[in-house]
Amino acid sequence: MQAKLALARRFCENGRPDRKAGAYTLSTSSAPKVNPGNFFEDFRLGQQIRHATPRTVTTGDVALYNGLFGSRFAVQSADTFAKSIGYPRAPVDDLLVFHMVFGKTVPDISLNAVANLGYADCRFLKAVYPGATLTAASEVIGLKENSNRKTGIVYVRSRGFDETGDTVLDYARWVMVRKRDEKAAPPGDHMPELPKAVTPAQLGAACPRIDAAAYDNVLAGSPHRFGDYKAGDEIDHIVGVTVEDAEHMIATRLYQNTARIHFDHFTESKGRFGKRLIYGGHVISLARALSFNGLGNAFHVAAINGGRHVAPLFAGLTVFAWSEVLETASLPGRDDVGALRLRTVATKDRPCADFPLKQGDDSDPAVILDLDYWVLMPK
Amino acid sequence: MQAKLALARRFCENGRPDRKAGAYTLSTSSAPKVNPGNFFEDFRLGQQIRHATPRTVTTGDVALYNGLFGSRFAVQSADTFAKSIGYPRAPVDDLLVFHMVFGKTVPDISLNAVANLGYADCRFLKAVYPGATLTAASEVIGLKENSNRKTGIVYVRSRGFDETGDTVLDYARWVMVRKRDEKAAPPGDHMPELPKAVTPAQLGAACPRIDAAAYDNVLAGSPHRFGDYKAGDEIDHIVGVTVEDAEHMIATRLYQNTARIHFDHFTESKGRFGKRLIYGGHVISLARALSFNGLGNAFHVAAINGGRHVAPLFAGLTVFAWSEVLETASLPGRDDVGALRLRTVATKDRPCADFPLKQGDDSDPAVILDLDYWVLMPK
Amino acid sequence: MQAKLALARRFCENGRPDRKAGAYTLSTSSAPKVNPGNFFEDFRLGQQIRHATPRTVTTGDVALYNGLFGSRFAVQSADTFAKSIGYPRAPVDDLLVFHMVFGKTVPDISLNAVANLGYADCRFLKAVYPGATLTAASEVIGLKENSNRKTGIVYVRSRGFDETGDTVLDYARWVMVRKRDEKAAPPGDHMPELPKAVTPAQLGAACPRIDAAAYDNVLAGSPHRFGDYKAGDEIDHIVGVTVEDAEHMIATRLYQNTARIHFDHFTESKGRFGKRLIYGGHVISLARALSFNGLGNAFHVAAINGGRHVAPLFAGLTVFAWSEVLETASLPGRDDVGALRLRTVATKDRPCADFPLKQGDDSDPAVILDLDYWVLMPK
Repeated sequence: MQAKLALARRFCENGRPDRKAGAYTLSTSSAPKVNPGNFFEDFRLGQQIRHATPRTVTTGDVALYNGLFGSRFAVQSADTFAKSIGYPRAPVDDLLVFHMVFGKTVPDISLNAVANLGYADCRFLKAVYPGATLTAASEVIGLKENSNRKTGIVYVRSRGFDETGDTVLDYARWVMVRKRDEKAAPPGDHMPELPKAVTPAQLGAACPRIDAAAYDNVLAGSPHRFGDYKAGDEIDHIVGVTVEDAEHMIATRLYQNTARIHFDHFTESKGRFGKRLIYGGHVISLARALSFNGLGNAFHVAAINGGRHVAPLFAGLTVFAWSEVLETASLPGRDDVGALRLRTVATKDRPCADFPLKQGDDSDPAVILDLDYWVLMPK
Repeated sequence: MQAKLALARRFCENGRPDRKAGAYTLSTSSAPKVNPGNFFEDFRLGQQIRHATPRTVTTGDVALYNGLFGSRFAVQSADTFAKSIGYPRAPVDDLLVFHMVFGKTVPDISLNAVANLGYADCRFLKAVYPGATLTAASEVIGLKENSNRKTGIVYVRSRGFDETGDTVLDYARWVMVRKRDEKAAPPGDHMPELPKAVTPAQLGAACPRIDAAAYDNVLAGSPHRFGDYKAGDEIDHIVGVTVEDAEHMIATRLYQNTARIHFDHFTESKGRFGKRLIYGGHVISLARALSFNGLGNAFHVAAINGGRHVAPLFAGLTVFAWSEVLETASLPGRDDVGALRLRTVATKDRPCADFPLKQGDDSDPAVILDLDYWVLMPK
Repeated sequence: MQAKLALARRFCENGRPDRKAGAYTLSTSSAPKVNPGNFFEDFRLGQQIRHATPRTVTTGDVALYNGLFGSRFAVQSADTFAKSIGYPRAPVDDLLVFHMVFGKTVPDISLNAVANLGYADCRFLKAVYPGATLTAASEVIGLKENSNRKTGIVYVRSRGFDETGDTVLDYARWVMVRKRDEKAAPPGDHMPELPKAVTPAQLGAACPRIDAAAYDNVLAGSPHRFGDYKAGDEIDHIVGVTVEDAEHMIATRLYQNTARIHFDHFTESKGRFGKRLIYGGHVISLARALSFNGLGNAFHVAAINGGRHVAPLFAGLTVFAWSEVLETASLPGRDDVGALRLRTVATKDRPCADFPLKQGDDSDPAVILDLDYWVLMPK
């Protein structure tokens, strides 16, 4: 499965595969103060990019995120619950942090993207609380021009920081980007080595040592702790949720993600899909919220090993999800929490009682997300 | 009217009347960590149920609630106004508290409900301010199997608590729940005695003694105080508001209410209504916001005597409302506020200038809500 | 262009041009406690009107505004950025303040409006921070009955205040209002003198002296400062954003704006447009957010000289925008910031690469907004 996770290019989450780069060039020349985004030949190996728009995360952001996804993990929902196990207060949902950091990278990295190819080595390194201010930066860690000379793959390591300068999130991403000029010289091939999965020893930095005995299963909504899960467990999360255009646009704007393919029906109605494409991260958040039903004590996403947006999602469709426990692991030196490596698959307009893709079948057209990640659970 | 309020079963607000319980059982057996909800035979008289997912209420929740309903009651809108009359700051809207507490009960009480039958004796007991953390618990106070042996009525008393353990909300509710196994033995009939209405002496616990002289009618938006209303007054609230799917889903998720009938178009498109059903509480909040126009100084919902969701509401329809003053009452020992007992009727796609249901006509198909409740007004 | 800005009456943003006043009168008589709004003959020159519903602005309001518009101006987005240049914390978006103040005036000024005719002399006078409570008042500064005797123009100067009583916003507005009784005596003509534009000396009161050297262009997302712009510059903001009914209704309710034409599909489906009309201020906020792409350092809207809602906007359409720099100006005594006078034009379902209306062509049916305003940029 890792091979499939490692490189996927089915569709584009923040570019426009079907339009010529020329459209951007034209606009750029007529409006030189407008951000044209970077094209493939603009990236240099080792290049450091500081991204724009710092953002103070507030309880307002948290409330809107809750309204959009309906998350029910008790640690993020209640200050009292979080304090009872050792947090200073309820932390911000990990995926909200991810989306806010990711959003900042879009104007520099993927405005001219054809396809978002993959993530790897994504680690949550420090808990974020309301009041923190997030910034982001990326380093170009790989470049490879495609044989058609029209596009190339850009590998970046992106990091999110809080206002103290501490890294809260670190991940690698690779994306296919158009060239401005097909004749521009190729940069030579530099493919970074990326781990197939984050190791258990790397997990838990964003989770304070918790008082597992004080963790109240009833309040949390699930009697099942780390020890109750084993590799191979399959869980149908049962419930489906339909997505509306207003919802995914509000969410994606909340993250200040500027990829226009999510927002501009006029242009997209003439494009490849005939409609706005939903930000891939929206599906991840929906699947995470659905996964509460069966994984209610998986209170922290500690790392994302890889993931594919297997097919696009559009408004009006209903998302379902199921998960498989790929692996269970202890964290070195910690007896308060354990880690589950999960594969969560999301589908559109297709309930998951029979676990689509379970046998590695890659052809179910209803599957939209195949995510490999680590969560922490109290022991 | 009380008889009608006491027991209604027109439709289900958080179950799925048209599907067989078997569907749940199947999913449950294949995914044992998933919450299957309780079936009728799982409930025991006197059973105490602590509900999951504590929630810290924030100004973010308040802002989103305001965006969804447009409430204009000055006490909840402005800290300065609230302080001027004796509150420490603006309290959280009473109905937002109700919805959050109600939402917590759904996974335990009504996930397998066929119909939400009624509310009674609902009292708001303590003001809730941003920063408070809400939890909920229920006691089973009645059980009665239906003659078809397929379902039974479960009566619960549900309570919401703040982080100090104080009760902020207390109400009785009864709901028709499917049996898992039709052959399960009936529990015997136990019907609780419930008051037809909350008495005036029970009102006002959640409202501090206010300085009625400092209450600014102009800022509040209405010159009419308690003394200006009398039993029999009828008020058409005139304005209508159309509901979108994105709105009711965002609201219902904000309350962490998990009843899937509100969210899953794929499944519901093949169900009884052919579409998602809007959470009944959404209609109550819409009607309350509309009622500002005519009842602008009714700043606090002190109690709900009973209510019926007479017909379902779906997205795309426009809600109108009118109110009748059923009764006026003084609160023992208080000369700062008085209580109006109101009947508020909401309709869909039907203006209320002629007060539908005024004559007790129960057959107007446009009526969706018939609510009997107490509000407080400054004297 | 000023002449065009000065008086426009293409459509109504918060009245209902196509319906007879009688409808309101009927409702009023049957429900005397309901606010019927003021009719033309109810206004008196010099009349002072305090508006209802004070509102404490919170980070929740800010988050929801961000989710609805996706603003990326760094000063409003991050406390750290704001502090680094001299603000005590991130201020509330100027237009959110405008909409909240405007919303308060609707029930008294424009509930019976036929058309919102224009704005002038709008100045932002004090920065607003989360926690501030906004109130509003208006003075009638002009009255002129129309020759048909059915309507008249009401000129008001409206002001927004914070909880200390300081004025945060001051603007003139004129609106065509129905008469209740066509036979009511005309009040005589009183036309106020209003400036064609706010002068540079009047700008900047709401912007503390900033440390322009500390202003980080990279974090802000644009390398272009005040000195990089000159009169005549034209900027296509390129990106389009589609508006959904749920979005504009949530926004307009957030401002407690009660103009029913934005909310009631049932009634409007039989009206002039056959659908809900989007609040004109929604377009201003969309255009402002889009303008970040090309004007990323225009961190503060200091004044609005005038503006026209040239044509109505409806849900499902996509808004594009372009801007022209009309003028650049220094602020007397300040070397930290300079002012750009901008004309921003917004369109529906029409990209702006060729700058529609550039030649003063007033007939492009895709144009919906033509706004003349001052922004501040760091020097």
